[in-house]
Amino acid sequence: MSDLKVAVMMGSKSDLPIMEETANILKDFGVGYEMKVLSAHRTPKETAEYAEDLRKRGFKVVICGAGASAALSGVVAAHTTLPVIGVPIDATSLNGMDALLSTVQMPPGVPVGAVAIGKPGAQNAALLALRILGTENSEIAKKLEEYKQKQRQKILDISLN
Amino acid sequence: MSDLKVAVMMGSKSDLPIMEETANILKDFGVGYEMKVLSAHRTPKETAEYAEDLRKRGFKVVICGAGASAALSGVVAAHTTLPVIGVPIDATSLNGMDALLSTVQMPPGVPVGAVAIGKPGAQNAALLALRILGTENSEIAKKLEEYKQKQRQKILDISLN
Amino acid sequence: MSDLKVAVMMGSKSDLPIMEETANILKDFGVGYEMKVLSAHRTPKETAEYAEDLRKRGFKVVICGAGASAALSGVVAAHTTLPVIGVPIDATSLNGMDALLSTVQMPPGVPVGAVAIGKPGAQNAALLALRILGTENSEIAKKLEEYKQKQRQKILDISLN
Amino acid sequence: MSDLKVAVMMGSKSDLPIMEETANILKDFGVGYEMKVLSAHRTPKETAEYAEDLRKRGFKVVICGAGASAALSGVVAAHTTLPVIGVPIDATSLNGMDALLSTVQMPPGVPVGAVAIGKPGAQNAALLALRILGTENSEIAKKLEEYKQKQRQKILDISLN
Amino acid sequence: MSDLKVAVMMGSKSDLPIMEETANILKDFGVGYEMKVLSAHRTPKETAEYAEDLRKRGFKVVICGAGASAALSGVVAAHTTLPVIGVPIDATSLNGMDALLSTVQMPPGVPVGAVAIGKPGAQNAALLALRILGTENSEIAKKLEEYKQKQRQKILDISLN
Amino acid sequence: MSDLKVAVMMGSKSDLPIMEETANILKDFGVGYEMKVLSAHRTPKETAEYAEDLRKRGFKVVICGAGASAALSGVVAAHTTLPVIGVPIDATSLNGMDALLSTVQMPPGVPVGAVAIGKPGAQNAALLALRILGTENSEIAKKLEEYKQKQRQKILDISLN
Amino acid sequence: MSDLKVAVMMGSKSDLPIMEETANILKDFGVGYEMKVLSAHRTPKETAEYAEDLRKRGFKVVICGAGASAALSGVVAAHTTLPVIGVPIDATSLNGMDALLSTVQMPPGVPVGAVAIGKPGAQNAALLALRILGTENSEIAKKLEEYKQKQRQKILDISLN
Amino acid sequence: MSDLKVAVMMGSKSDLPIMEETANILKDFGVGYEMKVLSAHRTPKETAEYAEDLRKRGFKVVICGAGASAALSGVVAAHTTLPVIGVPIDATSLNGMDALLSTVQMPPGVPVGAVAIGKPGAQNAALLALRILGTENSEIAKKLEEYKQKQRQKILDISLN
Repeated sequence: MSDLKVAVMMGSKSDLPIMEETANILKDFGVGYEMKVLSAHRTPKETAEYAEDLRKRGFKVVICGAGASAALSGVVAAHTTLPVIGVPIDATSLNGMDALLSTVQMPPGVPVGAVAIGKPGAQNAALLALRILGTENSEIAKKLEEYKQKQRQKILDISLN
Repeated sequence: MSDLKVAVMMGSKSDLPIMEETANILKDFGVGYEMKVLSAHRTPKETAEYAEDLRKRGFKVVICGAGASAALSGVVAAHTTLPVIGVPIDATSLNGMDALLSTVQMPPGVPVGAVAIGKPGAQNAALLALRILGTENSEIAKKLEEYKQKQRQKILDISLN
Repeated sequence: MSDLKVAVMMGSKSDLPIMEETANILKDFGVGYEMKVLSAHRTPKETAEYAEDLRKRGFKVVICGAGASAALSGVVAAHTTLPVIGVPIDATSLNGMDALLSTVQMPPGVPVGAVAIGKPGAQNAALLALRILGTENSEIAKKLEEYKQKQRQKILDISLN
Repeated sequence: MSDLKVAVMMGSKSDLPIMEETANILKDFGVGYEMKVLSAHRTPKETAEYAEDLRKRGFKVVICGAGASAALSGVVAAHTTLPVIGVPIDATSLNGMDALLSTVQMPPGVPVGAVAIGKPGAQNAALLALRILGTENSEIAKKLEEYKQKQRQKILDISLN
Repeated sequence: MSDLKVAVMMGSKSDLPIMEETANILKDFGVGYEMKVLSAHRTPKETAEYAEDLRKRGFKVVICGAGASAALSGVVAAHTTLPVIGVPIDATSLNGMDALLSTVQMPPGVPVGAVAIGKPGAQNAALLALRILGTENSEIAKKLEEYKQKQRQKILDISLN
Repeated sequence: MSDLKVAVMMGSKSDLPIMEETANILKDFGVGYEMKVLSAHRTPKETAEYAEDLRKRGFKVVICGAGASAALSGVVAAHTTLPVIGVPIDATSLNGMDALLSTVQMPPGVPVGAVAIGKPGAQNAALLALRILGTENSEIAKKLEEYKQKQRQKILDISLN
Repeated sequence: MSDLKVAVMMGSKSDLPIMEETANILKDFGVGYEMKVLSAHRTPKETAEYAEDLRKRGFKVVICGAGASAALSGVVAAHTTLPVIGVPIDATSLNGMDALLSTVQMPPGVPVGAVAIGKPGAQNAALLALRILGTENSEIAKKLEEYKQKQRQKILDISLN
Repeated sequence: MSDLKVAVMMGSKSDLPIMEETANILKDFGVGYEMKVLSAHRTPKETAEYAEDLRKRGFKVVICGAGASAALSGVVAAHTTLPVIGVPIDATSLNGMDALLSTVQMPPGVPVGAVAIGKPGAQNAALLALRILGTENSEIAKKLEEYKQKQRQKILDISLN
């Protein structure tokens, strides 16, 4: 299970502290991933080429984190038929609402699955990617079940007294 | 390719005109789906049981459409480890912003991939589900590529003169 | 008046500093309460069972604090016929607007009474629960009247010179 | 069970089509109610006096519907210690967001339980009032349970084929 | 010109640092004012009585600062026919948007003139009150003209080199 | 009382149906007014000159209605020391939120009193102007009191049975 | 002055009724333009190539209209160094706020000049393009001055009596 | 290339730290600019005169930064036919949303090209001005192409390992 399965892209190096949350969960699940900074606006060609090559390089899912007018996930979805997950990042004075709307309000035909703004979204992007991989990989599916049980147990172990 | 692959849930029968957009695309791709009205608030147990059974019934992806305080996709994601796609529906005076935030702002640990509000989102939910299926099913992947080319051609065929 | 009357639930331990505002007021009024961390998304079954048992355990009111896509109060309201009060908590970059809309925009049939975002709401949730108890308990009603007078006097005692 | 239990107030006669949704549910449950148009801004004294008399007249719960800068529920809550439920009404170009924030963002000390904007909220206001009455009235509690079962059954009876 | 002309009310002592901006400008103009903490929700009667007496006590204008569900200016406007200026105060997680909408979206019949959220608004409330006084008081009108010239000169004196 | 007292300006002829609400109330009170279409953006000089002349022409108050980026009230306030009331008009897809923020969020030094978006605001602008005039004109003050009583009576006369 | 100077792009044929407002003004000024439907998401390559060729084809300005997650203007700006003007189009339930934020909140390095949502913006996009052309073309500059005078005169000719 | 080409205006000296971002980029490109603090509200005449003189002084583009009810760019656009770029500045509790809407929602006839809120917008304002200058100045066009390549290279040089 060490091949590259998930591409974790981000529009700027300043998104790294958020997108490392994604990487950490993928690492914990033992799923191979590649992190890449590519911008829909500053490196449009490289972004297009990178997205176009993902399927043939064996990737199964793409996760794109971007802030402001967050075009990255949509542009990547335009250049691949792999499932694309968008993480809106709070990078301006508008608290991430700009990135959320840019990420989620995709026109019909080019789908992006958006998760929550910022770190919770970055974590859930990894988990959603794992759920996608888990549709065919029973080992990942089993680990997701265990993860769910651990989360559950953590809550049940809380004692307020 | 006629088995049930995608569960298309919705919180109310009034969501049907939106969610039929999802069904139509799945039908066009020849992918088996099941439509089901179940409410996180009015039929919580049946929703939980339905979600829990999805994986063993052979489903690969769940799509949930809901308006207002749209809890359905999150509750379904809590009861399965399959990938869940949420379609926020514009069902109140707030233009779907309530459904969008309820759907997308999931806490870490329980992922939902949100698409756009209303019909464009319902269509993209189907396409995202197909992209997920297409990670392992080369026939679907091929059809997605063709769909993309048709979309592209439709734009290129537009003549403004 | 020492029996358990009010269940104070929250979706995450990080909500505790807010929900302690609720507890403090209930304590001051000498009303029995139970605090419980249970998540609509991470412990859905335990949440359902806990909510279902509340009435037979003698509780009269439930208060639920949750942030982000705040499904807790709605899910609890789905599993009990006791009155449910929702406290939206500011837990994301969106300043609690996500939690507010998720809490208040309940579909018809499953009511939640929402209070303000954060600490003011947590305090008012306790006072609203006390008003509910005070509809039948004249001692609590009397204490609420005194509380109101004290609040009034506090304002009147302010001297700006 | 025919005494007056619930006061249904509204700030303007134009709110009546919304607030009749509240009345209809109370009527269906056989609970006595009184409807009253009184404005926090245009009849402040009569509003204050009406609110102050509610408890001694035997009312248990107050429901207040108002649009725009919806001060009614807060002002009523200031003049009684009964539980107050606020229904924000979409009466301006802002889709009810003004009424929602005015209703729900009460300062600490004077609680209002807000429900959803418009008709869904007006219906839930009745149901929340009934849940409050049902904390002590087992007949109402039983009817609420039956209502819940009917709602559930309605969903389960939907056939999409 | 030392009589009391402007009443400067606020809903909570925590609003004082904002409303002192109002007071400072009135003081600079030599206009008599009275500051008063009174709450629409916690001291409704005293607020009503205070507002009702303002005209006969010789006041010409009322300024009301309040945050959250900012009912003060509207309630005061309901109890007097003097011009009322509302200062929305940023007192919750919603950045003052709640106070702004509560203050400005008054229903027809009971006017409030709203100024900007927070300190800029508190300063402009004083200046608007002075403009009102200046409609009949030529000394104040002259001082306003001088103030305007001073503001203008301050800008013109800025050297960026 | 037939002299010109209130200038009613608007940025576009399309604002007339809203601003006639202002005119109608002024007419009912027998207060002289002048209506004028002048744009901060399309007739900046004429707007400036018109505003500058208002005081010497005997006007006491200016009311400015404008939509979109509603600069009119602020620009008029910059060219006079008379009190300026701004009516935000819902003239774009943003429901008047753009006009509201442009009107109310004035920087310190140049005050505008904003009223509600659209017709309710246009009516209240007239009433606020009358309250300003009524600070020195006891006849107007008396009429405002009567108007208030009529409004009150209208509410009290409503019978819901 | 009949060469092609302005490229008027739009993301979907449904944007045409809006973008024709742009074309009409350019036509009135006698400035050559080319209208083109190309989508950042559905025809990414053709969009990139079209944008890249614009300068060498002699165009001076690009105007891009798009709704929802409006990536077109940003993507075009990424592939040319010509000035790009973005027209946000109201194409979803969110009233164009999604398109506005996607268009205007560009990250540093890739500039887009955004105009208002919908038709007013489409008209102003043409005028802004003309102002850009008018920096070097004195005939256009003169026509802009005349246009301004006509606009001014239109306002001054309005008679409200 | 040392003549004054770009006027960089701002409404208040407190906007300087933002607008220096504009200046720095213009300086790096060797393009002459003039910075000026002038307020649409506090120095309306000087603002009008300054704007009117810009074309004859040889300026080609105007950039205006302003916060709150940001009237500066619109007022400047009303007094010149040069292209005007507006930078909304986050100067109030509303995170710059007020300045953004005031800047971008210009009525038809008077165009302003708005860029992002704050520093990213201030930088892009400079780049958009340079693109405008570059339509006729091939040296600037060449530098813009190099700038773009440098930006691209910066992204490509990022190594995450």
